[in-house]
Amino acid sequence: MGDIYESVMELAKRRGFVWPTSECYGAVAGFIDYGPLGAMMKRKVEDLWRDFYVIREGYYEIECPTVGAEAIYIASGHVKGFADKMCQCPHCREYLRADHIAEAHGKANAAVLSAPELSAFLRLLPCPACEGELGDIEVFDFNLMFETQIGPGSQRKGYLRPETAQGIFADFNRLVRFYRNKLPFGAVQIGKSYRNEISPRQGMIRLREFTQAEAEIFVHPEHKEHPNFALYTDYEMPLLGIVQQQTSAPPLRISMKNAVSRGLVANEYVAYYLALTHELLVCAGVREEKLRFRQHLPDERAHYAEDCWDAEIFSERFGWVETVGIADRTDYDLRAHAAHSGDSFTVFIPFDTVRYERKRRIIPDMGVLGPRYRGKAKQISEALAAADPGEDGVEISVDGERFFIARDLYREVEEDVEIRGIDVRPHVIEPSYGIDRMMYAIFEHRYDEEMVEGEIRKVLRLPPRIAPVQAAVFPLMNRDGLDEIALSITQSLVEQGILAQYDDSGAIGRRYRRQDEIGTPFAITVDYDTLEDSTVTIRDRDSMNQVRIAKNDVPETLRLLINGTLNFDLLKK
Amino acid sequence: MGDIYESVMELAKRRGFVWPTSECYGAVAGFIDYGPLGAMMKRKVEDLWRDFYVIREGYYEIECPTVGAEAIYIASGHVKGFADKMCQCPHCREYLRADHIAEAHGKANAAVLSAPELSAFLRLLPCPACEGELGDIEVFDFNLMFETQIGPGSQRKGYLRPETAQGIFADFNRLVRFYRNKLPFGAVQIGKSYRNEISPRQGMIRLREFTQAEAEIFVHPEHKEHPNFALYTDYEMPLLGIVQQQTSAPPLRISMKNAVSRGLVANEYVAYYLALTHELLVCAGVREEKLRFRQHLPDERAHYAEDCWDAEIFSERFGWVETVGIADRTDYDLRAHAAHSGDSFTVFIPFDTVRYERKRRIIPDMGVLGPRYRGKAKQISEALAAADPGEDGVEISVDGERFFIARDLYREVEEDVEIRGIDVRPHVIEPSYGIDRMMYAIFEHRYDEEMVEGEIRKVLRLPPRIAPVQAAVFPLMNRDGLDEIALSITQSLVEQGILAQYDDSGAIGRRYRRQDEIGTPFAITVDYDTLEDSTVTIRDRDSMNQVRIAKNDVPETLRLLINGTLNFDLLKK
Repeated sequence: MGDIYESVMELAKRRGFVWPTSECYGAVAGFIDYGPLGAMMKRKVEDLWRDFYVIREGYYEIECPTVGAEAIYIASGHVKGFADKMCQCPHCREYLRADHIAEAHGKANAAVLSAPELSAFLRLLPCPACEGELGDIEVFDFNLMFETQIGPGSQRKGYLRPETAQGIFADFNRLVRFYRNKLPFGAVQIGKSYRNEISPRQGMIRLREFTQAEAEIFVHPEHKEHPNFALYTDYEMPLLGIVQQQTSAPPLRISMKNAVSRGLVANEYVAYYLALTHELLVCAGVREEKLRFRQHLPDERAHYAEDCWDAEIFSERFGWVETVGIADRTDYDLRAHAAHSGDSFTVFIPFDTVRYERKRRIIPDMGVLGPRYRGKAKQISEALAAADPGEDGVEISVDGERFFIARDLYREVEEDVEIRGIDVRPHVIEPSYGIDRMMYAIFEHRYDEEMVEGEIRKVLRLPPRIAPVQAAVFPLMNRDGLDEIALSITQSLVEQGILAQYDDSGAIGRRYRRQDEIGTPFAITVDYDTLEDSTVTIRDRDSMNQVRIAKNDVPETLRLLINGTLNFDLLKK
Repeated sequence: MGDIYESVMELAKRRGFVWPTSECYGAVAGFIDYGPLGAMMKRKVEDLWRDFYVIREGYYEIECPTVGAEAIYIASGHVKGFADKMCQCPHCREYLRADHIAEAHGKANAAVLSAPELSAFLRLLPCPACEGELGDIEVFDFNLMFETQIGPGSQRKGYLRPETAQGIFADFNRLVRFYRNKLPFGAVQIGKSYRNEISPRQGMIRLREFTQAEAEIFVHPEHKEHPNFALYTDYEMPLLGIVQQQTSAPPLRISMKNAVSRGLVANEYVAYYLALTHELLVCAGVREEKLRFRQHLPDERAHYAEDCWDAEIFSERFGWVETVGIADRTDYDLRAHAAHSGDSFTVFIPFDTVRYERKRRIIPDMGVLGPRYRGKAKQISEALAAADPGEDGVEISVDGERFFIARDLYREVEEDVEIRGIDVRPHVIEPSYGIDRMMYAIFEHRYDEEMVEGEIRKVLRLPPRIAPVQAAVFPLMNRDGLDEIALSITQSLVEQGILAQYDDSGAIGRRYRRQDEIGTPFAITVDYDTLEDSTVTIRDRDSMNQVRIAKNDVPETLRLLINGTLNFDLLKK
């Protein structure tokens, strides 16, 4: 089949799935356009994601701007830490990813090396662009955020968001109120994110502008049991844990229940979203045998994360590609935003029953304090109530002035104070999907070539749910009323919400091939028998089998075939 | 009702429609977040738009990056011309829109004034921020594009797109092939666009990051008859043409057929999208009596546009707000991109029957040329074939060298040459929608307060199609099995694709009010009668009328009520 990447991208370009962006001016690396079929398919993939996260999990979607003020990204740590190690070739002046060069020359996990370490390692290596020896080369940090100015006069620095997550965190206090102060709750966002990659050369896999679908699920730190964990207790899938990686063992095929009970996965929440992600990816068209879940090694895992896994998808061209990250980020993000903004970023969780704590209360003797301190008496009594007196009395400070209040100017009483609940800072469970990488994986995994009647048939075996055209309708001939019948069938499908395409141009075999290439799962042909017995043929893309069904049954039959309720093989009697 | 803007935005904030962005760090003017209900509603509005443009009109959606290389925006004219007139107050240093100040002091259409003209007009006016006299103030152009750098080392300047349209234009050559070289065709895009406004102070009306929905329809310059114009020939709506504006006449209520035949609207395509836009906006919830279409005056219309109209929506707070622009942009954009990129940006349109043109052909005499010019003979004969000889012969140039080829070294013949068709540069019809302004208009037009039983009822009278919650389901009491029945009804609605929300907290009246505020059109209540006769009440948000229907009929009844097939009043017998 040759290089599958080339074949897939040739088809994707030619048929309107993915195009180089602004090609007439020379495409810009790291950016792509989704053409008519690609944009339709991408929307279907996003809607599938929403079916899982918004409809099934019940997490509302929100929409934050892509341009963010500097303050958010100082708090999130991106201004300081969101950088790649870069160097510039002294010969050809090309900018290069220092860690990528090191990895290409056998240094495993080079991303964790420091700038001087990388610099030392690179000395004798050739520049990947011009082959000149890199020599005494400086390695430095290049921040990956696109920077811009908000408003005139450089008043305000802004960044294109490096992830959608921070917008959700910044809205935390509003979200808590929306969800009426109950944990757990979640919010999701699907939208563009940006990373100003140093020299992206991997097509859809490393984009400077890409689409993320992220869920931020806020859970009680002491309750990491997912309420619907039962759904996945027996779900089995391949997990490549830290131990497996360190001992070069193959992935462990294990149920989620066992993965949690044996401590391979940190908690039910993480395990639940590992399984859900597996189900979602397979449902979108990723081949199960080319999908694994790899745990971050201690030195690659963020210091704050309790557990972190990548869903990795195998590509013939790119190897194992990280496509989804699933992490327990603890309270790191909310704590950071609390520290920087001054807001609390907590949820008040009432106790089931009110508790009482015995507390000392100080009651100032205003009869003495009043006349003695006059205008300041009120402030002094307030400061006193909040103070923690010693045996003789207490020194307090009011407006910078200090006063010693002796023991006989107040009384101390012990009281039972009502405690209704506690402020809890939730932990965040984050599944984060790269939609473009999913799209590429689906293209590669679903692309196929086979010999049919002496010719190569190119076929995109897309799941019917995400195919950009779900049904093609052909009149055998463009006359004798066949075309009118075919048009009216097309219309009735469109009214049912099925993406149907009418095509009457060229030989019927060529029309089938055209639809095979774009992954149309079913084709309806209206022929001369239709005029006599009101039946049409329905053809299955994958098997190329054909069955006759009643014309009037077409919309309902297709609906069931597309949503998966009906299997094509059962149509044959 | 007080200031409706304040009331609407208070509700929008409190209930999770629209939030200030990154509020915990101080909101940034010109940016907003859509909260859970707002994002849901916005998606519904976008889907409604797709129903019109993608499904009905058949124009495919594409998705281009928001970051674009400089070349596109040089070609489109944005680098040079996409600017507002700005000045800076000498006293408070605030940046100000010069034309806005002039307009606030009675200068009509100040945007068309030059910088010196504005400067002169502003002299004696007070700064709107500090009230100091502006005096001898400089007015200059401020480019409204957000600028950034693509890649390291300032290699490449990039801009955040000021409109989605340019991405479609840049893909023109690919689109032509996708649509198999036939005119007319269209492509649409829904996505973020950016304008770095100088000092935006109008909430959702003037955003620095906003969502556009644009359609670019490519038509044959000599065929501006819309194939489905019959749909709108008799559609009547208020048009405020140039003449009406110049004579201070009210808008003309006129059918599209007459608008075109009387020359008020330039052609059928423009008229068609005026009517479609009217239908779409009303369908989305804009009040018909607060909607008009205003033609651009000659001095505000872009020089290249053949005709241009704004759909203006009336706001209590902001007056008439431009929300949709509908223009015949002629071949301006494609011509500009052709000139800058070197690509043709044309469609080859074959003639119905092949035509012949009589043409002179030059046949070089290779018997002489060959020996004489040897290695250069081939190039010379090619240059000769393309030349236009005079009486004696012709001078040609090969590789910078000039040769005079005398008359006897070639023959001239006259031939009939086959002409199969012609390269046509299409004209562009562009309806361009501001989704955020639509959202605000819907909020304002659909917000209502009324006295009910001595209390103010706040209600958002959203069309059921775009309501973020379409049906609420309440158990009268949270026990005796009522809750289970209500939950199972909720579940059956969700499975039907209806956005249903279960709510069992608080008194039933309070629950109704909560749903009224967020615009939920229907509420189902399960009460003790349900246990006996399997009926439930269904309540209509607007009339507050209630009817009992069979429990099992709920999903189908709601489906019909929501899609508009069934009117609530007909439920009562």
